[in-house]
This record gives sequence, structure tokens and C-alpha cells, in this order.
Amino acid sequence: MLKIRALISGLLLASSVSVAYAWEALPEKAPEPANNPGSADKIALGQMLYHDPRLSSTGTVSCSSCHNTMLGGEDNRANSIGVGAQKGGRSAPTVWNAAFNAVQFWDGRAATLEDQAAGPVTNPIEMGMKNWDEVINRLKSIEGYQVAFENAFGSDALTKENATKAIAAYERTLITPNSPYDKYVKGDKSALTEAQVRGMQKVEELGCTSCHSGPAFNGPGAFRKFPMYSNGGIEAQYHFGKDKGLAEVTKKADDDHFWKVPTLRNIALTAPYFHNGSVPTLELAVKVMGKSQLNKDLSNEEISDIVAFLNALTGEFPKQSMPLLPRTPGTTLTPAPL
Amino acid sequence: MLKIRALISGLLLASSVSVAYAWEALPEKAPEPANNPGSADKIALGQMLYHDPRLSSTGTVSCSSCHNTMLGGEDNRANSIGVGAQKGGRSAPTVWNAAFNAVQFWDGRAATLEDQAAGPVTNPIEMGMKNWDEVINRLKSIEGYQVAFENAFGSDALTKENATKAIAAYERTLITPNSPYDKYVKGDKSALTEAQVRGMQKVEELGCTSCHSGPAFNGPGAFRKFPMYSNGGIEAQYHFGKDKGLAEVTKKADDDHFWKVPTLRNIALTAPYFHNGSVPTLELAVKVMGKSQLNKDLSNEEISDIVAFLNALTGEFPKQSMPLLPRTPGTTLTPAPL
Repeated sequence: MLKIRALISGLLLASSVSVAYAWEALPEKAPEPANNPGSADKIALGQMLYHDPRLSSTGTVSCSSCHNTMLGGEDNRANSIGVGAQKGGRSAPTVWNAAFNAVQFWDGRAATLEDQAAGPVTNPIEMGMKNWDEVINRLKSIEGYQVAFENAFGSDALTKENATKAIAAYERTLITPNSPYDKYVKGDKSALTEAQVRGMQKVEELGCTSCHSGPAFNGPGAFRKFPMYSNGGIEAQYHFGKDKGLAEVTKKADDDHFWKVPTLRNIALTAPYFHNGSVPTLELAVKVMGKSQLNKDLSNEEISDIVAFLNALTGEFPKQSMPLLPRTPGTTLTPAPL
Repeated sequence: MLKIRALISGLLLASSVSVAYAWEALPEKAPEPANNPGSADKIALGQMLYHDPRLSSTGTVSCSSCHNTMLGGEDNRANSIGVGAQKGGRSAPTVWNAAFNAVQFWDGRAATLEDQAAGPVTNPIEMGMKNWDEVINRLKSIEGYQVAFENAFGSDALTKENATKAIAAYERTLITPNSPYDKYVKGDKSALTEAQVRGMQKVEELGCTSCHSGPAFNGPGAFRKFPMYSNGGIEAQYHFGKDKGLAEVTKKADDDHFWKVPTLRNIALTAPYFHNGSVPTLELAVKVMGKSQLNKDLSNEEISDIVAFLNALTGEFPKQSMPLLPRTPGTTLTPAPL
């Protein structure tokens, strides 16, 4: 299900661009696959499943534990913690605007939000359910879920496929439009500070937008190499190279250190940074990107302006109601939490 | 700060009562202490703190992790799991209607919600912060909290005392009125089924209400002995006696196996049961209570009717908006999550 990396022909790391870059605002709605149109019942069900710790073996870890919808869509940890206090190998990516990613997971091993949603639930170090039969078994023991699945999908609907469809439909509503940047692009020239405008120009001029482009700053194409430039000092400090990204999935040398391009939306909220969460601040992240992707030592002024611009990508978070999860009946869950 | 247990003079375990028992509906507002009146800003701040995993050493455990406001106010586990996958010794009590408890914690060691809120944050097996200075230090590094505390309490307000006041003020809003029982008591005789009415009569007749009385079925008085009757069979199976309750705090033999009387409100949602979560179903819990508190073998019919009645104590859960937690700045938290 991997997107063809070969689509990405050659990286355009031009240090200046002659044609003005086309800045785009974030759409207020995410594209939907034909086989999973959103509906109010489906989205409500997805919101419940997303926030339900009973989808984990211990009954303590929900999707939102690591991809926290009350925060920047992740957990502000270098790497996330699943059942049994097990640490994951990568830093949780944000769920906000994930609907605009060309592929999902850091290594892009899922092509869709639906595919992605199926993974963590049965990952032994994340939510730790033995298999999806066990998940469905537990959900079926909760009467309210029987009703909610039926409302969303019709009868005999409590299946893995529908559970992941509902979660994906909910995730497609997690969009943060109307950032200062969006307002600026739509014509409100007062929406950005001078430093932010300088940062925006710098981002274009340096060529950051050759990878981080489009409305979510995560394209074009799905995968890019990181780090581009081998740099002993940075590697010694941050150990980016230890994890081979896409190649860990495909086992192909050509895919070594290729990664899904992460969105820059709300990046000011998701410290620490990079796939291994090894970089504690946004300032340092920008400096590291200059060195590892452009082979440039950015000045403190450049870094400061770019960080100001990145802060302008923090959008408006939709008001959500807190879901009331379908009630555990007056009996221990089946299977019982570990 | 313990309430004086001696106030509870003699247990009234009458097997029948001559004066009709005065059933009470749940108030829609909880009593407030004079030094902590609720306000919209304070409650909003409390809701944020309550749901914020950054109040734990690892950044993964919030109050709501164990006392889940999307569920029955707890975690449906025999015992809760704190930072580092450490298991607590007792089953998490529900936060719903905790405002009506005479004392807090199973062993009643906190007299108020404010006192209670201070405990788990620095408990090494719950939220694991080293001390409250560390908590306040981290909160101060989050700009949004500086603003939220100021809005709620005025300037220089980011203190432990105010944090626990805000959490308590929020918890006082977590009330579930209008259960079928409440409607019945207020005059809607169709609100309960026949089995539920029989169960209600049985609860009075057996004398359950001598401990579980008042609008939240958790009084009068704060503490009661459990188990009342030593019963080798039950002890061998459920090990209730291992934990001495109040005596673990006071170290007094007189307090052996004295416990806060838990509310029966929403009890159908909080399996498994008792302080050690050793009883998997509500049916069994009722049977055990008959044996251990009344020295009676309840019939299956009696148990079934009482369980029907207990299900009528599930109230209406207030609609809450999902809090947007004050954003982690573009830098790792201080102190950094473990």
C-alpha cells in the first residue's frame, strides 16, 4: 500500500526561486475517500473510539493518549508510551491535519487514515490488543457500541473495517484553519508580524517549500530524505541516522532515511522535534534543518524569523464536545484489562 | 484533616424499618466551601488541569486517566495504573458526585476535594511528580496557564493551593442528576420498572440505607466497617481484609477495616467492585454485600431486583466541552517528561 516513492523525481533544493511561490491557505474540509464519506453518526462514533482507553489491553491507552486532541495532537514526548510503560521508537506525529498527509506514519507505511487507525491498537508496545478479534469482542460487550455502530453503518456493523473507517472519518474533522498565516494569505496583511513576513520570505528563498509546500506544508510527493547531508556533528548529537525510515519497512537500500514529510502546521506546539524527538526546541529544529537539508549555517536572525513564521502556522482548533463513551456494563470487560 | 469517626455512633443494621425511609433526589448543585466559590474561569481552569497529562512526571497520566470523565468517572480496572505502569493498591473511586462525599479517598484521608486533588499528582505510583514545586514550575513554563490562573485567581496566582482549588471547583460540577430513581422520587411513578421498585423496597427493608443513604447513597456519617461479618469463604475469595482502610492511615486498631461509604450513584458503570476491585459484576457485589454486611444469603430474585434498582441510579451526565489545554511552547517541558 505504499505510495510509489519514485514519483518524487529529484529534490528541488534551489537556494532561490525565480517564480513566486504559491502560498496556499488550509481548506476547512479534508478530502474524503469515496468508500468512506463522513456522516454525523460515523464521526461521533469515531470520536468515541478515538478517545476510548478500552481499545487497549490494559484499558489505559487510547489513540488520544499519544495523539492528544486537547493538545497539539501529540504528547510532547520524545517518544510515546504505550501499555506497560513501553516506549515507542518514534515521536508521535500530530493528528491535527493528518487528513492532508499523502501517507501516514513517519515511515509512510499506511496509505490512508483508515489503514493507519488499524495499526496501533494491536501493536504490542502501543495499545497491546492481541488482535482485532479481541478488540471487536470487547466492543461487542459494550451495548452502547452496538447501537453506535448500527447508527453509523447499519446492522451487523461492528467490524474492524467500520471501526477504522469511523476513526478516520473523525480524524478528517481535526483541521485547524485560520492561522495568522492563512489570514495573511487570504488578504489580511496585518495578520503577520514583520518578523513573520521576513520568516515567510526566508522559507521560500531557502527552498524549505520544495519539500514543505501545499496547504499543510507537507508536499509535494510523500517521501523525502532526511538527513540529506551527512553531518558528523549533528549525527553524533541527535542520532537521526539510526532509524532508516521507509527502508525499515521496504528493506530497500534506496529507501534508506526516506520519511513522510511532516506537516509544519501547529509545529510550535509539538516539541520535541524530529522522528526521534531528539531536538528540544523549535529554534534548534530550524537550525538542524538548515544544516542537514540545505547544508547551510543559518544565522540567528534567520532562525528567529523562521520560528516567528512557524508560530504563525498555529491554527484555530475546532471546539469539540467531550464524548460520553458507551458505558461499561455492570460487569468486568471481556477480555478483562490486564 | 480526618473527620471524627467517633461521630458515627453504632451501625443501624435493622432488618426492617418502621418509619418509611426518606428517599432523596440528587441536588443539581454541590455545596461549595466558603473559601472556594466556583466561577466560570476557575472551573474552566480546573477542567484543564484535570485533563492535563503534563501534571505527571511522564506527561502521560492526568486525573482523568484513572477518574475518566468520559466514562463512569473511573477506569473499569481492579486497580489503576499510574506512571511507569505501576499498579495502585485500590480501585479508583468515581469522580462523578464526589462532591457529595463526606470525605475523600477510599480511606477518607482527605476531608475535602481540595485536599484530595493535591495527593495523586505527587504520589510516586500515580502521577509521579517529585513535589508540588516541580508541578508549579512546569505549569509556569506554559504561558496559557499563567493567563488562566490569573483570570481565575488574580495576579501571582499560580500556586498549589489555587491549582487544587480549581480542580475541586471543576469536580463540583461533575454531578449526574435526573436518574430514573430521581425522577421517580420527584413524582414520576413511571420512571422505574416494577423490578426496580421491588429492588428499592428491598434496599430499604434490608437496611442497606442505614449506610447508603442520602441523595448520593453515601451517608450518614463518613466511615463504616467493611466487612462487618467475618466470613472465611468470602475472605478466601476476595481478600477484602488485607487492606485495613482507615487504620492504614491512623494506625489505630479501632479503625481497622473502616472505609468511606462509597456512593451508589452510577454504580452500574463502575465494575469491577469494592476497594480492591476483586468482584467482577454488580450481581456478585450485591450478593457479597448481603453476606458481609448483613450476614444474609440473598436470593437470586432479591439480587436481581436490587441490581435493577441500582441501574436506576445511573444519572444524566452533563455535556462538557473538550478543553483545549494551554499549549506547550515550542520547547520541551520543564522538567522534561521522563
